[in-house]
Amino acid sequence: MTGGEFSLIDNFFASPAVTRADVSLGSGDDCALLEVPPGRQLAVTMDTLVAGRHYLPQTDPWRLGWKVLAVNLSDLAAMGAEPAWATLSVTLPAIDEAWLAAFMQGFSALAARHDIQLVGGDTTKGPQAFTLQAQGFVEPGRAMLRSGARPGDAIYVTGTLGAAGAALQLLCADPQQAIPEALRERLEQPRPRVEQGRKLTALASACIDISDGLSGDLQHILDASGCGATIELGRLPLLPETRAFMQQRGQWQLPLTGGDDYELLFTLPPQKQPALDALLPELGCEVTRIGTIDSEPGLRCIDERGARRDPGQAFDHFASDD
Amino acid sequence: MTGGEFSLIDNFFASPAVTRADVSLGSGDDCALLEVPPGRQLAVTMDTLVAGRHYLPQTDPWRLGWKVLAVNLSDLAAMGAEPAWATLSVTLPAIDEAWLAAFMQGFSALAARHDIQLVGGDTTKGPQAFTLQAQGFVEPGRAMLRSGARPGDAIYVTGTLGAAGAALQLLCADPQQAIPEALRERLEQPRPRVEQGRKLTALASACIDISDGLSGDLQHILDASGCGATIELGRLPLLPETRAFMQQRGQWQLPLTGGDDYELLFTLPPQKQPALDALLPELGCEVTRIGTIDSEPGLRCIDERGARRDPGQAFDHFASDD
Repeated sequence: MTGGEFSLIDNFFASPAVTRADVSLGSGDDCALLEVPPGRQLAVTMDTLVAGRHYLPQTDPWRLGWKVLAVNLSDLAAMGAEPAWATLSVTLPAIDEAWLAAFMQGFSALAARHDIQLVGGDTTKGPQAFTLQAQGFVEPGRAMLRSGARPGDAIYVTGTLGAAGAALQLLCADPQQAIPEALRERLEQPRPRVEQGRKLTALASACIDISDGLSGDLQHILDASGCGATIELGRLPLLPETRAFMQQRGQWQLPLTGGDDYELLFTLPPQKQPALDALLPELGCEVTRIGTIDSEPGLRCIDERGARRDPGQAFDHFASDD
Repeated sequence: MTGGEFSLIDNFFASPAVTRADVSLGSGDDCALLEVPPGRQLAVTMDTLVAGRHYLPQTDPWRLGWKVLAVNLSDLAAMGAEPAWATLSVTLPAIDEAWLAAFMQGFSALAARHDIQLVGGDTTKGPQAFTLQAQGFVEPGRAMLRSGARPGDAIYVTGTLGAAGAALQLLCADPQQAIPEALRERLEQPRPRVEQGRKLTALASACIDISDGLSGDLQHILDASGCGATIELGRLPLLPETRAFMQQRGQWQLPLTGGDDYELLFTLPPQKQPALDALLPELGCEVTRIGTIDSEPGLRCIDERGARRDPGQAFDHFASDD
């Protein structure tokens, strides 16, 4: 943090949208100086988004600024952490002031919503990419890990699945076409489940955010917890627009593999079911039971008729269709 | 931190060279979980290095891994912070296992030297670039800021200046040519002044690390402190190889503008001079008084004969020669 290459962003760093009392020194020196509250662990995460790989180059800059922060807040949410601070690296081939101002406004809008302060970063010239490091607080022993799932636990997801994957397929085929806004918004402006994650820490036995697709991210929980799972395909929560897309294209596996959902996948011990039921009105989003943790290793999917479907084969089929 | 794209680096993240007792959960979940010691502030910094802009693409990977960490440790050093944790984003167009292994070995060699643990990060495909976020501890009120310099303070630098700038000019002209190893090492494998920074916290009124060149980085101190400075050019510490390069090319301004030095520039109140003199044997590196903080705004340079030289003009002249 020794001086960036674009003064416009330096000004933005110097005047963040959120200012917190626990930031003793923000941007503008060699380091920021921060105060972690006594009795709290620090939860840290970092994600990089590269143009053309993690987002389409023509993505609206306001939404891209939002998304760069959102994907990291989603990781904090998956641990049940309270967001606090972020550092941002911006790499751009050239300056476009209107584009940058919109990017920073989108970033700030989400930062204000979750009271996270941008405390510094770096700006460099190069191929367009963004790296964000986000930090939050969690009470010791309360973070939701991937390793706590046990046979008999119910598997839940927040929100709906597959909409971002559908939007990406449509926009990759034709970036200029009009697509349903409900799908586009899920791809370009995901809502990290920060409040839900914090409320679930007392209940969930394991949690992860779904960024690479339900089946792959659930597998991370199964690997860390040493168990298996059965998913009931008929229970997967879908937007009407997503269901229509899947039916038109025969892509029943989209909500398993689509990616970019940024919903929480969590497991719930049976004895915590009443507590979850009581919490539901406060969660502020749909929460759906989609399956069960088993002792038998591996991931199984059953359709509405009780017949088994192979998500691995399904994914291969999908890939060869693409 | 939701799963990287290169398993080789994921393995490296999972088995860092340094493991610290204050890391409750390292790489492999949505976040790392860290314990800040009671009564300590967190110092955080982030820097991005882009291939072809911040380093030559043919740079030895071991030294590049070292440098990615070194430039961030240098920011911690400038605050007087004790290094603790790092998160690393690696973006590469393709996998070269031998190259990556060497990169990680160089990174680990420096991490072990300063007891800093890699606690997570991200790996993505894209144009080659590295972003590191580093964190350390400092006692409240003890961090060295840029804003504390006062008229009458002496200006000191650690080590020597200009060697990295000379190496860069030589290698840009011909990347394959043999150049003096003393110059090349200063460019490619800088030694961050971490121990020196920690020992100087009780003495220095202001400090910065020299990454963009002495005159520019000193100007940051002058701006933050609201004062000016006079530099005595004849006192600037130089390696013999750097002096020879400057004489051959008439580049007297190289140590002012060269950049990539990663030395500490600090200011010392007169009453702290005896304490610095007593500390010198423990510092383990050359420390040279190069000038004085003035109340008159601006940066002045005086040569060996007492004549004033204009570093701004000098820099323009240098740029037009390049």
